[in-house]
Amino acid sequence: MAESFPMNGGNGVYSYTKNSLLQRNVADNAKLMVREAIIENLDIQTKTFVIVDMGCSVGPNTFFAMQNVVQAIKHKYHSTCSQIEFHVFFNDHVTNDFNVLFESLFSDHQKTYFAAAIPGSFYGRLFPSRSIHVAYSCYALQWLSRVPKGLIDKKNKGRIHYDGASIDVWNAYVDQFEKDMEVFLSARANEMVHGGLIVLVLPSIPSEQHSKIGYRIFTFVESSLIDMVNEGIVEESLVDSFNLPLYFPSDEDMTKVVEKNGCFSIEKLEITCLQCNIDAKSFIIHIRAGFEGIFTKHFGSKITYEIFERTLGKIEEIEAWLETEYYKTTRQLFMVLKCKKLIL
Amino acid sequence: MAESFPMNGGNGVYSYTKNSLLQRNVADNAKLMVREAIIENLDIQTKTFVIVDMGCSVGPNTFFAMQNVVQAIKHKYHSTCSQIEFHVFFNDHVTNDFNVLFESLFSDHQKTYFAAAIPGSFYGRLFPSRSIHVAYSCYALQWLSRVPKGLIDKKNKGRIHYDGASIDVWNAYVDQFEKDMEVFLSARANEMVHGGLIVLVLPSIPSEQHSKIGYRIFTFVESSLIDMVNEGIVEESLVDSFNLPLYFPSDEDMTKVVEKNGCFSIEKLEITCLQCNIDAKSFIIHIRAGFEGIFTKHFGSKITYEIFERTLGKIEEIEAWLETEYYKTTRQLFMVLKCKKLIL
Repeated sequence: MAESFPMNGGNGVYSYTKNSLLQRNVADNAKLMVREAIIENLDIQTKTFVIVDMGCSVGPNTFFAMQNVVQAIKHKYHSTCSQIEFHVFFNDHVTNDFNVLFESLFSDHQKTYFAAAIPGSFYGRLFPSRSIHVAYSCYALQWLSRVPKGLIDKKNKGRIHYDGASIDVWNAYVDQFEKDMEVFLSARANEMVHGGLIVLVLPSIPSEQHSKIGYRIFTFVESSLIDMVNEGIVEESLVDSFNLPLYFPSDEDMTKVVEKNGCFSIEKLEITCLQCNIDAKSFIIHIRAGFEGIFTKHFGSKITYEIFERTLGKIEEIEAWLETEYYKTTRQLFMVLKCKKLIL
Repeated sequence: MAESFPMNGGNGVYSYTKNSLLQRNVADNAKLMVREAIIENLDIQTKTFVIVDMGCSVGPNTFFAMQNVVQAIKHKYHSTCSQIEFHVFFNDHVTNDFNVLFESLFSDHQKTYFAAAIPGSFYGRLFPSRSIHVAYSCYALQWLSRVPKGLIDKKNKGRIHYDGASIDVWNAYVDQFEKDMEVFLSARANEMVHGGLIVLVLPSIPSEQHSKIGYRIFTFVESSLIDMVNEGIVEESLVDSFNLPLYFPSDEDMTKVVEKNGCFSIEKLEITCLQCNIDAKSFIIHIRAGFEGIFTKHFGSKITYEIFERTLGKIEEIEAWLETEYYKTTRQLFMVLKCKKLIL
C-alpha cells in the first residue's frame, strides 16, 4: 500500500488551501494547453463524461482545473450533443482533508457537474474497468508511492533528497519512479475507456541537470536541518534516514515508462518554463503547507517547527535564488496520453 | 437547498460512529430482507453495478449494509457473470464527517468494491442520468429537507415535534414530507437505470397513532426543555420556534407519494417491529449523537449540554418506557421500488 503524505488540511495560515499559489500558477499556465489537448484528442461518444483529478488535494486549484476540462469538452461537443452530463471525481489519499474540499466545492454555485470523491492512492486501482474518459493530474505524480526501497541500505548522508546526492541514491529514486509509473499506468489502462485521455502536468528536471545543480527547492530546508545537527539538536542518523519521496522526471524518463507500459500513445509532450512571482516568505510557507506533514512524521512537530522557523532566517539568500536560479531549474512537463488498447 | 443536520462527527464519546447501535440493529434486522429483495427483484445485465447508500453518515453501519448488497448481487449473478465489478457511492450531506468515514472504510481490507463519496442532499440531483442500479437508504429519509414551511406562522407551543401536537402542526409535517418525497423520487427517477431498485428502511408510525401516543422518543428531551423554560433558563419562544424536521411515515403515506410520483412500482412494502436491547443511558447518548447538532444550532452549545444532562436525570422513567411502551410505538418500514419508466 502506498504511503500517504497529505498537504496541510484545514483553513489555517499554513494550510494548503491558502498556500497553493505556485500550483495555481502552474495550473493556470497549463489551462490553455489542457483545453487544446482535449479539443484535439478526445474523440468519444457518450452522454456522460467521467473525469477524475488524481491528487486533487483540498482545493481550490482542483475546481478551476475541473471546470476547465468540463468547458473544453462542452465546447467540443456542443454542436453534436446538447445533453451531455459530467461526473467529476476528486481523488486523493484517504488522509486528505476531504471535509475542507467538500465545503469549498459546495460554496461554488457555478458547478456544472455532478461531484464525487474517490479516496485512495492512484498507485493502485480506484475505478471499475472502462469507466473514465479523462484523467487529469497536476503536480501530484512527482510524489513517489514511498521512499525508494533502495535507500534503506544506502544512507543518503546529510541529504534529504537525490539533489546533489551520489549516483547510487539517484538510481534508487529512478528505480522507484519507474516501478510506480508502471503501477499507475497499468491501473489507468484498466480503468480508462478506449480512447480516453490522461492529461499530466508535473514538475520536471532535464536529465542532464541531475548530476549538476539539481532542483534546489529543498536546499534551504536541508541546510537548516544540517545546522541543527551541528548544534546537536537533531541526531545525524535521523537526517541520513530521511528522504523526500519525490522525483521530478525528465521528458525522456516519461517517454521511457509510457513506452515500456505499452497501453498508451503519447499524443503530446511539452516542457515549459514558468515565471512565478513569489516572495521568499510566501515560498517558505508554501513549502511548509506541502511538506510539514512528512517532516513531522519523521522528526516530530517540535523539530519540524524549528526547521521552518530557521529557514525563514535565510530569507535574503532565498530571495536572491528566487530572482536568479529558480527559474533556470524549474520546468513543467505537460503530457497527454491516449488509452490505446484493451487489457483482457 | 436542503438544510443539513449531520450526526456527530469524530470518534469521541458522543460521536455517531460510536453510538449508532440502534441503527445497526435496524440494518441487521433488514439484512435478510434486503438480500432477498435484490435476489428477487434485480434483473439488470451489466458488468459494473453502481450502488449508493443515501444518508450513509460516518459508518460503520453503512459498510455492513453495502457489503450485504454487494454479496446479494454476487450471489444472484455468480453463475452468469464472473467479472462483475461494484462501484459503491457513500452519500450524505456536505457537512457529514467524510474524513472519519474514509478512515474506517480503508481500514476494512475485506472491501470488494470501488468506493466513492457523493456529498450533497438526496433531496436533489446527485448523479448523472441513468447511472444507479441500486439505491439504498436506511434510517435517513425520515429527515425532512427542512423544518416544515407551514410551521413558520403556526407556533408549536411547548413542543419540539408533531408528537402530541395540534392537527395543524401535524398537517404541516405531512405537507413537507410529501413535497420532499416528490423531490426525492423525481431525482432518483432520473438517476436510476430502468429496472433499478430503491431499497428503503425507515422508522414508521402507523397513521392511526398520530393523534394518540405518538413516537415519544423526544418526549424526555422535550420535558427537560420545558423544565428549563419554567426555571427561566430558556426563553419559551425559543422552544416554540424549535421543531425537529423529522417525519415517520406510515405505509399509507409511502404508498401515496410513490403512486403520485408514478415513476416507480412498489415491489415490496413491509412493516416490522424490532426488539432492541438498549439501556436508558445508551439510549440518551444515542439521541445525543444523532441530534446534538440540530439542538446546538438553535439553542447554542451550553443549553444543549444541559438539555442532555437533565435528560440523564430521567433515567428510571426512560428505563421503564424502554421496557414497556417503546416497542409498541416503534416500527420499521421496509420498501422496495423499481424504476419503471424513463422521463424524457
